[in-house]
Amino acid sequence: MYLEKINSPQDVKRLRREELPALAEETRAALIHKLSHTGGHVGSNLGVVELTVALHYVFESPKDKLVWDVSHQCYPHKILTGRKQAYTDPAHFREVTGFTNPAESEHDHFTVGHSATSVSLALGMAAARDAFGGNENIIAVIGDGALGGGEAYEALNTAGEYQGNLIIIVNDNDQSVAENHGGLYAALRELRESGGRAARNPFRGLNLDYRYLDDGHNVDKLVEMLESVRDIDHPVVVHVRTVKGKGLPYAEKDRENWHSGGPFRIEDGAPKNGYPVYDTTVHDSLTELLENDPHAIVLTAGTPRAMGFVGQERADWEQKGRFIDVGIAEENAAAVCSGVAHYGGTAVFGVYATFLQRAYDQLIHDICLNNNPVTVLVLLPGAYGMKSNTHFGLCDMQELIHIPNLVYLAPSTKEEYRQMFRYATTQKNHPTAIRVPVRIIESGAEDTTDYSQLNRYKVVQRGGGAALIAVGSLIPMAKEAAQAYYERTGRKVTVINPCFLSGTDDALLKDLCADHRLVITLEDGVLDGGFGERIASFYGDAGMKVINLGISKAFHTDFNAEALLEESGISDPRLCALLDKNLAQENE
Amino acid sequence: MYLEKINSPQDVKRLRREELPALAEETRAALIHKLSHTGGHVGSNLGVVELTVALHYVFESPKDKLVWDVSHQCYPHKILTGRKQAYTDPAHFREVTGFTNPAESEHDHFTVGHSATSVSLALGMAAARDAFGGNENIIAVIGDGALGGGEAYEALNTAGEYQGNLIIIVNDNDQSVAENHGGLYAALRELRESGGRAARNPFRGLNLDYRYLDDGHNVDKLVEMLESVRDIDHPVVVHVRTVKGKGLPYAEKDRENWHSGGPFRIEDGAPKNGYPVYDTTVHDSLTELLENDPHAIVLTAGTPRAMGFVGQERADWEQKGRFIDVGIAEENAAAVCSGVAHYGGTAVFGVYATFLQRAYDQLIHDICLNNNPVTVLVLLPGAYGMKSNTHFGLCDMQELIHIPNLVYLAPSTKEEYRQMFRYATTQKNHPTAIRVPVRIIESGAEDTTDYSQLNRYKVVQRGGGAALIAVGSLIPMAKEAAQAYYERTGRKVTVINPCFLSGTDDALLKDLCADHRLVITLEDGVLDGGFGERIASFYGDAGMKVINLGISKAFHTDFNAEALLEESGISDPRLCALLDKNLAQENE
Repeated sequence: MYLEKINSPQDVKRLRREELPALAEETRAALIHKLSHTGGHVGSNLGVVELTVALHYVFESPKDKLVWDVSHQCYPHKILTGRKQAYTDPAHFREVTGFTNPAESEHDHFTVGHSATSVSLALGMAAARDAFGGNENIIAVIGDGALGGGEAYEALNTAGEYQGNLIIIVNDNDQSVAENHGGLYAALRELRESGGRAARNPFRGLNLDYRYLDDGHNVDKLVEMLESVRDIDHPVVVHVRTVKGKGLPYAEKDRENWHSGGPFRIEDGAPKNGYPVYDTTVHDSLTELLENDPHAIVLTAGTPRAMGFVGQERADWEQKGRFIDVGIAEENAAAVCSGVAHYGGTAVFGVYATFLQRAYDQLIHDICLNNNPVTVLVLLPGAYGMKSNTHFGLCDMQELIHIPNLVYLAPSTKEEYRQMFRYATTQKNHPTAIRVPVRIIESGAEDTTDYSQLNRYKVVQRGGGAALIAVGSLIPMAKEAAQAYYERTGRKVTVINPCFLSGTDDALLKDLCADHRLVITLEDGVLDGGFGERIASFYGDAGMKVINLGISKAFHTDFNAEALLEESGISDPRLCALLDKNLAQENE
Repeated sequence: MYLEKINSPQDVKRLRREELPALAEETRAALIHKLSHTGGHVGSNLGVVELTVALHYVFESPKDKLVWDVSHQCYPHKILTGRKQAYTDPAHFREVTGFTNPAESEHDHFTVGHSATSVSLALGMAAARDAFGGNENIIAVIGDGALGGGEAYEALNTAGEYQGNLIIIVNDNDQSVAENHGGLYAALRELRESGGRAARNPFRGLNLDYRYLDDGHNVDKLVEMLESVRDIDHPVVVHVRTVKGKGLPYAEKDRENWHSGGPFRIEDGAPKNGYPVYDTTVHDSLTELLENDPHAIVLTAGTPRAMGFVGQERADWEQKGRFIDVGIAEENAAAVCSGVAHYGGTAVFGVYATFLQRAYDQLIHDICLNNNPVTVLVLLPGAYGMKSNTHFGLCDMQELIHIPNLVYLAPSTKEEYRQMFRYATTQKNHPTAIRVPVRIIESGAEDTTDYSQLNRYKVVQRGGGAALIAVGSLIPMAKEAAQAYYERTGRKVTVINPCFLSGTDDALLKDLCADHRLVITLEDGVLDGGFGERIASFYGDAGMKVINLGISKAFHTDFNAEALLEESGISDPRLCALLDKNLAQENE
């Protein structure tokens, strides 16, 4: 057993070179063991076991700096840098995060989660190293999927005229989250098939030195290759072919399904907790659109599964040019949508809230300035969405509600979602974004609202004294609090579903002044710059008391949505207490 | 005279091919005539005269779709598409904008201003054309400078697997706004020098078909080349070498200075209104930093002149690796800064507010999540900044104030700027952005504020009854209004300079409740989601009347800052009237 002796990269370096394959195998076994219990990013980590062993054998971390792109492939790195217990001992499984984390180790330099940033970050460290007169190696490890992102290209372009040490490892397993898309991948294939000799070389095209290694699971050859570029005096791309999911036959075979997932049985890969059941509301709305509107085109930036598009169905729509996966390239996706809509087509871009941040400028300039009627589905928004700081998604309202021309809708039920989606994809007056709730409930009541009447809030129940205005996902909580308060006091308060996050219903808000003294706003995102503050501003000189409830401005991570909301004062009891306090005063 | 007969592209197509060079020369003469009177983008437009004539001769606009990247080179296109009077007749000079504009003509498809979007927009139109079963040509015209932007690359990558008609004209004049930066440009040079035959070909590296034309000012050859790709059934890159500023020797020679500018004398290029005098406050702060801090690195994304870095001084700092121009690649610039700061260096990124939008995700994830003490100088923010909707910059506060860890400072004087800059670039606790006022005044009073005491607002003058809280640039107006009101009524109101846009001074705000009934906030940006709403939220249940003044949510364009502010209720008389009305009530 080698792994038990490895407590830091220094221990890796102490091994004899012929012992490294055994260390790699033990590392892989530890990985599989933990992954089978906890789930996680299976494919990417199994693919870089040998590469990681070789990197720590040849380089001297933390003096030499390793920057992992996305960093969802950092588990072997964590195992070899003093954190193996978190992979071998179930009692410690939860002690490490799934991404590089400077708080855990001096061998991690950045908290990462988004793609295509490693070469820029490494370039920055290299530039600083030069200013400090240092001589360490700076190494970025980037996957083929991330290479489709514009930020990676921008950095490779800058690297192409940089004149110091910079080692860029392209970890090519011929797979993004889903399959790769783009002309780049034809060139990568040629390079793999020619042993790196093909004339068409996108790296040399950026003035970069280039090396190729075909067997990215041969530690010996990896060590040789890395030793040949150690202390190099200029930027070099080391293109290494690896196998995503290496070591688990079912994962090697079905690379998309095994990108990440839950606990599984090692023998056959069967999920321990059963196959997850996905809500099909979004998927169904999209296929209905594609079937009924021959000019509809649905776009994804590398995450087709987020909209339920998989297998043959996806392939068929792609074949017809009606479903387009541009790869991890949100900027491009947004601008393509604008082109589709300008031509007269119906464009829908489905994207996780956290990744929509990448297309902020394109939303403003390409879509909204041109007022092209694109529909953006904002997936996994707010506290109920992604729960790691590596995929920050608590500020979708801040990103969108100030953009001129954009209508941002927040459904609270499946029926509302469907009606809003129909509205967005059939009107031609403005771009629309829809904040798709994570837990989207079927209310049973059909929604026939005419959303072309912009900025009309819905009165869920009309009472007096106080009004609760709750963003989409929080409508159920607002209703429950109102009900609990009613049952206890006999007083009926008003509950409002604003539906439109990008505007105020001035008439309704004004109307409340007649018999309300308090308005409480609820949102499952960061409070600062979000939805509620606008309501406070509206009532600023109207004598209406306004309490805005939302989440504090911080990179919350690994949270439970309900707990975070409660901590932010968003809970039934707190709402009842606020009503008690304020409406009681009224009677004094 | 040919030009007088040209009222639409159809008229161009009616000419005999041998008449086209004369039309081009007349077009160039018209351009030079107008530019010499009004200024504008000189270099880019003079460089595409022949190309534009050839495009309209070969293709059939508006059936065939021309998409101009950035579109600052669209003047010849406007001349040939029914808008020539705006170039030939001084009485009509102001009737067209400086960018493509669908409101002006069916030959313009998008309002553009930011770089690197044309290929995405064209791809979107091509995808929609396919869905509609159309057969027109879709043509993107993109400059070499814009090719450094990630969005262009993402789109070229997608184009590399697209299977329909798409013609991408690379207009290569070997110059961005300033000189080009990046490895790509070594490859473009080789292609130019080899007549397109060099093995290193970044376009073929993305699986794209490729053609080269060396003389981009020979209309005949251009026509031949364009005819050869008309109705092509797959994407093709047509790489055309042109000369920026073609036809004006001084502009051809000094391409950076002649990128854009004011009116000039045709005979020698001397500016008619004298040489512009630039404020050197930002430049001086940066050179002082570079000279005193050996680990400081200043970054720009293609606009070094925005920070006053030109000529030999710029070349010297670049040579030392202390000034880095990454080209038009804001995402990369922001992430490089994070790498520099993580290593321990001092990173400063100077960027126009409108272009910072491109780095929104990198600000959040690469810089702020990692809490790396980068300094971002936000240039030309708000109403006093860029005044065209093509360079929307009225929402910098919306973009920044909700990001955790980021401190956003708003100086109101040169002295405050200098002290804030010193603070930002010497502390290591958090990233900082500084909202650099456009008209930055020297107050004469040294600023010794300790900005490490976060979120402490400054009381400019303490009075009672009402308080004016004004963001940076609007402090002078707030002071004037307070003074005017005092002179008329003898009542002294409070004036507050918040300095920190990203937080509230809770103690001070609470303190105001004792003897103030009204708070008015002033900001020179869009009101929705901006600074003031947070103050309204703070006072929501405190019985303080709050009036938030800011600009309406719209793509304001071609505005005068004072007029737009006045229209938004931000003016001395309006402030006095608000004070009158509210403080009078107090006495009733």
